[in-house]
This record gives sequence, structure tokens and C-alpha cells, in this order.
Amino acid sequence: MTTKTNPGNFFEDFRLEQEIRHATPRTVSAGDAALYTALYGSRFAVQSADSFARQLGLPAAPLDDLLAFHIVFGKTVPDVSLNAVANLGYAECRWLRPVYPGDSLHSVSRVIGLKENSNRKTGVVYVRSTGYRGSEAVLDYVRWVMVKKRDESAAIRQEHVPQLAGRVAPEQLQVPAGLDFAHYDWGLAGSPHAWEDYAAGEKIDHVDGMTIEEAEHMLATRLYQNTAKVHFDQFRQGREKLGRRLIYGGHIISLARALSFNGLANAAFIAAINGGRHVNPTLAGHTVYAWSEVLEKAELPGRKDVGALRLRTLALKDQPAAGFPDKDAAGKYPDCVVLDLDYWVLMPRQS
Amino acid sequence: MTTKTNPGNFFEDFRLEQEIRHATPRTVSAGDAALYTALYGSRFAVQSADSFARQLGLPAAPLDDLLAFHIVFGKTVPDVSLNAVANLGYAECRWLRPVYPGDSLHSVSRVIGLKENSNRKTGVVYVRSTGYRGSEAVLDYVRWVMVKKRDESAAIRQEHVPQLAGRVAPEQLQVPAGLDFAHYDWGLAGSPHAWEDYAAGEKIDHVDGMTIEEAEHMLATRLYQNTAKVHFDQFRQGREKLGRRLIYGGHIISLARALSFNGLANAAFIAAINGGRHVNPTLAGHTVYAWSEVLEKAELPGRKDVGALRLRTLALKDQPAAGFPDKDAAGKYPDCVVLDLDYWVLMPRQS
Amino acid sequence: MTTKTNPGNFFEDFRLEQEIRHATPRTVSAGDAALYTALYGSRFAVQSADSFARQLGLPAAPLDDLLAFHIVFGKTVPDVSLNAVANLGYAECRWLRPVYPGDSLHSVSRVIGLKENSNRKTGVVYVRSTGYRGSEAVLDYVRWVMVKKRDESAAIRQEHVPQLAGRVAPEQLQVPAGLDFAHYDWGLAGSPHAWEDYAAGEKIDHVDGMTIEEAEHMLATRLYQNTAKVHFDQFRQGREKLGRRLIYGGHIISLARALSFNGLANAAFIAAINGGRHVNPTLAGHTVYAWSEVLEKAELPGRKDVGALRLRTLALKDQPAAGFPDKDAAGKYPDCVVLDLDYWVLMPRQS
Repeated sequence: MTTKTNPGNFFEDFRLEQEIRHATPRTVSAGDAALYTALYGSRFAVQSADSFARQLGLPAAPLDDLLAFHIVFGKTVPDVSLNAVANLGYAECRWLRPVYPGDSLHSVSRVIGLKENSNRKTGVVYVRSTGYRGSEAVLDYVRWVMVKKRDESAAIRQEHVPQLAGRVAPEQLQVPAGLDFAHYDWGLAGSPHAWEDYAAGEKIDHVDGMTIEEAEHMLATRLYQNTAKVHFDQFRQGREKLGRRLIYGGHIISLARALSFNGLANAAFIAAINGGRHVNPTLAGHTVYAWSEVLEKAELPGRKDVGALRLRTLALKDQPAAGFPDKDAAGKYPDCVVLDLDYWVLMPRQS
Repeated sequence: MTTKTNPGNFFEDFRLEQEIRHATPRTVSAGDAALYTALYGSRFAVQSADSFARQLGLPAAPLDDLLAFHIVFGKTVPDVSLNAVANLGYAECRWLRPVYPGDSLHSVSRVIGLKENSNRKTGVVYVRSTGYRGSEAVLDYVRWVMVKKRDESAAIRQEHVPQLAGRVAPEQLQVPAGLDFAHYDWGLAGSPHAWEDYAAGEKIDHVDGMTIEEAEHMLATRLYQNTAKVHFDQFRQGREKLGRRLIYGGHIISLARALSFNGLANAAFIAAINGGRHVNPTLAGHTVYAWSEVLEKAELPGRKDVGALRLRTLALKDQPAAGFPDKDAAGKYPDCVVLDLDYWVLMPRQS
Repeated sequence: MTTKTNPGNFFEDFRLEQEIRHATPRTVSAGDAALYTALYGSRFAVQSADSFARQLGLPAAPLDDLLAFHIVFGKTVPDVSLNAVANLGYAECRWLRPVYPGDSLHSVSRVIGLKENSNRKTGVVYVRSTGYRGSEAVLDYVRWVMVKKRDESAAIRQEHVPQLAGRVAPEQLQVPAGLDFAHYDWGLAGSPHAWEDYAAGEKIDHVDGMTIEEAEHMLATRLYQNTAKVHFDQFRQGREKLGRRLIYGGHIISLARALSFNGLANAAFIAAINGGRHVNPTLAGHTVYAWSEVLEKAELPGRKDVGALRLRTLALKDQPAAGFPDKDAAGKYPDCVVLDLDYWVLMPRQS
């Protein structure tokens, strides 16, 4: 009789080009959208109201882009990162099609890189994970994680470190099919500031703060069917160094995005994540603030109604963002910075 | 480059008869209804079951009246009360049409009164806010808030204090179109007590108590997309006098209404709020109890199946309601009273 | 004027064969399903994705069986157990038809047993409760509770202790109409282990742990419209022996079931509960672990695609399940065991 529980994959279980089809498929619903609103208070109009989305040519209000991401991501955890020591990075994350209530999603990952660490105890696994609605891809991204070896003496046959783009090129960003910002209602959206009004180098203090409770991050992370033990098990975490449950990094990303409405109300879609780092841990009880910097502006091929902004959003804990706390010249972050996220948003242009 | 964040309106930014169309439109769903049940445990049958609502001539179970109110109210916060010092009162709140899952709501406010305070630092702004589903009004209400001036020396051109009704007249109460209580199922509703069974002056101890957690009131307030900072930001609140996050007053109203089921199970709809005061702060950790007094009974024009009860419901903290704690002859409330709400409900009559 | 609040039924209020039709009817929705996922993180594929359920012949993903149970159960509390001293047991619980979003449920109980206790202060009431969608029964179960007498001197006319099955016979288990596991997707379900792979006597440590927060169990219990005061009122509970809010036993059952996915991923449906005991209290802050033992395997009449497993699942608090903590020879449970549940699941067979 073999053990019936999932031991997760160890470093030597992965093979280059291996494809992993993840459990559990998930039909998303207006219930998920309501919970997402309750968890983060997001106010972006396209995702909030069918009426607003339809005026732009969409069939209904899509799910928040990050909600779709978290659900796709959650499915990869039992196969990819159950034995992870650290989540090292993200790259080349693109949203390909909006996700709507009623869509059934599943996730597939392909191993695109493997590199044993010199200590021979761990290795780095690179996967490209794709979320599907039936046979259509809705988003994909690369992440790399440091995973334990089951057996330190095991010989590793394959090694490959993939070349990853430092940023998604603007011409690779997908504008949702049918979307036309010509009839965008700036008043209902909550801000008059269009793509033209932002300039590279501009910094925005998003002002508001949000304190995190244990119940909230656990509700969120379970909603995403993300099973990483560290988020849920205080008994075991109490015996670890930090002594506390760790908050799923995606929860902080969603909080920062919701806070960013105040200053970026018309950043209607996240089109890509170029990279992201959780540079310090966030715990329940911390109050999260955020500020953003415009890194780059890009026109989109053939579009006069919509442009792309490349943003860097930093989330802070227990530190209002007024002074724009940032890493120093040596790249070291102050303790208050918990997230540094580099991403592209789509924003309507002045008509 | 102008600042992109919303500074909110200061007293001198408001003009009499000014109309403010608020962001963010919102499509309500069965997900919101489920969350509302999870947050308050409400058991009124009309809002709980499509089957029950259809037997009364409605197309489906409408959203709880207060859920609709909170969503309409939440939208007004960024424009009306971001710089408020105090929320002074409500009046003339009427529900005009039931709201159903799938409806897209937005809010519009009109400034109906302005009065500078003698200290010249603040003024009182009166707005009539209306929630719309497309072009149909679903509810409206007046509230007045004390708002900071941006510049104390600014001269105020217009002043006007509106005349507000002490109570909504019974003939102004709206019975939902199509509603007929003839086939009301008293057994499934949970109580045999009809409109005829209540008498003016009657007091009801609602018996049950509900303790509030930080995660709960924040989930609720974000669900309503209400952005008032004081509800969410423990870091900043910790530096204020109370030292704690304040709970959105509407959360207490909803808790009191849900508790009132025990004694008022057939109070199927809230038709109007005549006035309401949050007379002491409620904090997470407090246990809320409630009692009600029947102030007045009214027949409704042309209706034998439904009558109106005017109620006063008081919410208490950490004090069971058995002794009906109330204000004293001088109008002073004991510390345990947190809410005094005067409103009309619709209740089926004996057939 | 009679009191309008529900005093609940006392022991002498019950009559043998009495039928109680419970308030409040409830339409379940995708919102309830989303909340259930957020509360427990359940990952069983049939209940998670319409696409997966449809491939098996069902019209959509049904609600989690326990969610349907909790909603049916919650309705019985105000009539059956408001004056209960203790919830003594469950038996003969069977799921008869899956419940889908959009279904309107109500509950009816029949008193099938009454037995006064020798102290004459309390008595045991046995009820068979049935959940209905319209006129179709969706589940039924027997529970017995110790209920206070209103008047110790009252003479009791009727006494009867029903004969209850120690276990539901396999031929009485209902396979959902239309269900055919022939096209079961083992990969998407998350485990290759079929009914054939389990053996009586086998023990499974479900590994993962989940810490409970006050906000979570209250959100759950309100979602089920379960009004038992002990779950919600810290002010009054603080004056009782334990000093804390008690967690609804069904919350622990749902947590244990969700944890059991790791080892029992293909236990697609709960078909019956043979019996269950909450042997120690669980409080917020406790971390729950679980382990299961296979008690019995049964083929189902005329089915080659699906078999039944009889399981015993034990939930533990603040004690990982590796050592399979259990009652001793005398039947005494260690303090860490909080639940001992005996139930039948349906699991696909190898094709």
C-alpha cells in the first residue's frame, strides 16, 4: 500500500520540458468577484460593473486580473512548490484573455529550467505556467523556486537556465478582444487622468493604508485553493523562526493594486508582470501602504484609444508612502518595503 | 503635473444645487447576498429565498435593503465625506425599488444645504444621494456631514439649511411593485406575529448578541467599496485618540437589523429611515445587542395585505437589552447605547 | 400582548410524531460555494468545476455536500436546539440528491423519540430532519439533543427511544442521478488512488493543518443561518466556564473534510454519516489536523464505476496527526481529539 498523501515534487523529480497538468479545475463565479471586493475593496470600474464593461464592448465585467492570476497560481503549488524553500521570482507574466464568471479554469506547467545549487541540497526549478479556459490560454507566467532535493547524493542529469525577458515588450501586451475605450466614462471611473497625463519618472503616493487580519489572508488564500502550509498552520509556524503564519505574496500584490486606485483609477487592466520581489515578510497586524513610479509609457500598435504604462509599485508595512521609501544605491531595501512589483497596465487615452 | 490622488472635497468646494456623479458603478450579485448573510446572519425570508419571494409576486429574492443602501452610500464617501470631521445625521431615506442580483448600481448626490460653522474651520454639507439602476432610482436619502475647510479665510458665498422631515410620511412609503402578501407563509417566515399584533409603545428585547471582529467589519466595508480611512488603517488610528479602527456605522445598523429578526421576523422590508444617530463608538471585540420600540403604526393607501410599523431600534455594546437601556430625560445616552435608529418597516397583515 | 421573541421549544413542548416546518427558506448560490471555498479551501474537483462535473453527467458542480448539510441543519436550531444543553449525536444521515446553485432549500423535522432524564430537569429529543428542494428531499438525518424542561414538575406523557442504525447500509447509499465515473479525469482530480487502492484498516495522515480564527467560524455559522448563541456572543460566553465562544461542530467537520483531500482526493461525495461525536471543544486559535481510517469497503448494486468507502476521520487540535492519536481501550479520547466522524464516501473505481 503506497502512501496516499501528496509528498510534492523534489528537485530530482523534475525533468526539462516536463508538462504538469495541475488539479483542481475551478469554475469562477460572481461569488469569487464579491469575495475579492470584500477582501481588497478594489474599485476599478471595468471589473466592478457589467454596465461599465459592456459600454466598452466586453460581454460583462471580467474578474479582476489578479484574482484570475491567483486561482491559476494556486493550482501549481501542490506540484511545483510544496517542497520549496523560497519563491525566487516571476517573469514574462501576461494576461491573454479576460476571465468571466462561469469560466472553468485549469493550469498546466512546463519545466523550462533546472539548476542544482552548489550545496547539492537544493536546486532551482523554472516553470512556465499557463491558465486555461478549456483549450484557450487566459494567462501565463514564468516563476522560479528553490526546491529541496529528496536525496542530496542524487546526480542531476540535466541543467538549463532559461533566458527570461527583463520586461514584456509592449507589442506583446494583449488588449482584450472587443475592448474599445472610445466610450469610457471618466466620471464613473473616478478620475480624469488619462494615459497622456502620466509621465515616466512620476511618483504617486497612494495615500490610503489597509491593515491585514489573519482571517482575511487565510480566506483569500483558500479562495485561491493555494495549499502552501505556511499560510495556515500557526501551530507549526509557531515553532519556526518568524513564529507566525506567512502571508501569501499575492495577497500583498492585490492589496497594493487596490490601494493604487487612488492615483491610478484608470489603470483598467493589468496586462503583464515584468518581475516582482517580496523583499520583506508581511504579517497579520501590519498596515500596508503603497506608492508607484511610472517607469515607461508605450503606445500600442494600431490603437488610439488605449496605451500602456509600465509601473513599479512598492508596498510598505507600517510606513505611509509619502517619502517614497525605496532601495538604496546598493539595491538594499529598508525594512518597511515588502513588495517591489514591475508591471504593465492598460489605460484609456484621451479621445 | 497635477497630483493624481483624490484629495476629496473641502467645504468651500461644494456649491448649492451642485450634482456629483459618483464612481464606481457596481453590479450586485448572489455573491454579495451570500457575503451579507455570512456577515450578519440575516434570516428575513423574502431576501433569503427566491421561492419565498416569488410566492409574493417578486421576480426573485431581492438584496437586503441595507446591503443596497451600503453600496449606494459607499460610492458617496470619496466625494462627500473624505474630509469629514463627523457624520451628523440621516433623514428622508426611502427605498423606492428592490434591488436584485444582476442590477448595476451607481450613485448621484445633489448638494441641498451648506452652513459654515462659527469657528470658520468647518462647515456642514447637506446632500441628497440617490442610488440608480440605469435611469431608475432605487433609493435616496439625505445626510449631513461636517467637512473641513481647505482655507479658513475663504469667504463662503452661499448658505442654506434645508428643511428636513422629522419622519417620512406613511403615504410616501413605497411597496415594491407586484408585491402581494396574500400568500405569505408565516410558518416559513419564522413567526406568526402580523402587523396587527404590534402596538405603539411595545418594546422588544431581541435577546441575541453578536461579537464583532476586525476582519468582519473590514470585509463588510470593503464589500461596499467604502473607502473611509478610519475603518481600515490601524497604523494611523493607533496614533489617534481612540487608538483603534472605527467601525462603519452601517455595519452596526445591519447587525441590529439582523438581530431584530428575533421579535420582528415579519418586518419584511425596510421602507424608510427617518433618522439615525451613532451615539457612541463601537470597536472590534464589542458584543452588540438590540432592542426595539414600536413608535407608530400606519395603514398604507389601498392595501389590506401590508402595513407599516415605525420602529426605533437601539443597538447596545457589551450590555444585554433586557432592561431596555435608553437615553435619559435630558436626552443623554448611557455609554452602552451605540445606535438609535428611527425607521419604517413593511409587515404583512393578517388575511 | 405576547412576547414576540422565540423562546425555543422546551422538552415538554415536543410530541412524538410532531412535524416541525422550519424557517427560513434559503436559495443557495455560487456565492455560497465561493464562501465555502474561502472558509475551508476545499479542492474536491466535482464540487469545484462545472466542467469536471459535466464530464461525469451532472448538470453543474453541485454544492459541497457538507454545505448543503449545514444549511439544512441551521434551520432546525431555533426550533430544536435553542434550549439544548448538549448535542448528543447524529445517525442515519444520507445525502439523497445533489444541491445546485439556484436551489431553494427548506427543512422539516419529525420528532421520533422522547426520553426524560432521571433528574427530571432535562430530556432527550430525537428528531429526523429532512432538507427539501421544493417537494424533493435532498438529505435527511437523525440527531438527538438534551433539552431543558420549562417546568421540572411537568409530567411527561410519551416516551420512546427510537432504534437507530449503527451504520447506513451500503445499499441505502444514493449515487447522484446521471453520475457516471467512466470519464473521471484522475489527473485533474489530483490523485491516482481509486476505490480499489484503499483497504480496510488503512490509516491516512492528512498532514496539513489549519488554524481557526473567530471571524472565520462566525462567518461560516452565520452563512448557515445557524443562530445558536454560544457561537457568537463573547460577552455572555466570557461569563461561562470555558470563557470563550464555542465553534459550531459542523465547522470542524468541514475543516476535517477539506484537510482529508490530501489522501482522499477522489472521495468525490459524502453519501452518509453513520455517526459523529465532538469529543472535546475546539476554540479559535487552535490548529486542526486530521487523520482517517478506512473502516469498510462496499460495492454498490449494479455499479462498476463507483464504490463506497466507510471512513472514520478524526480531527485533532494543536497536534499533528502522524501518530494517529485515538481513544484508548476504555474508549477515552486524548484531549487533542476533537471529532470522531464515521461516514461513507463515494469514490470512482478503476475503469
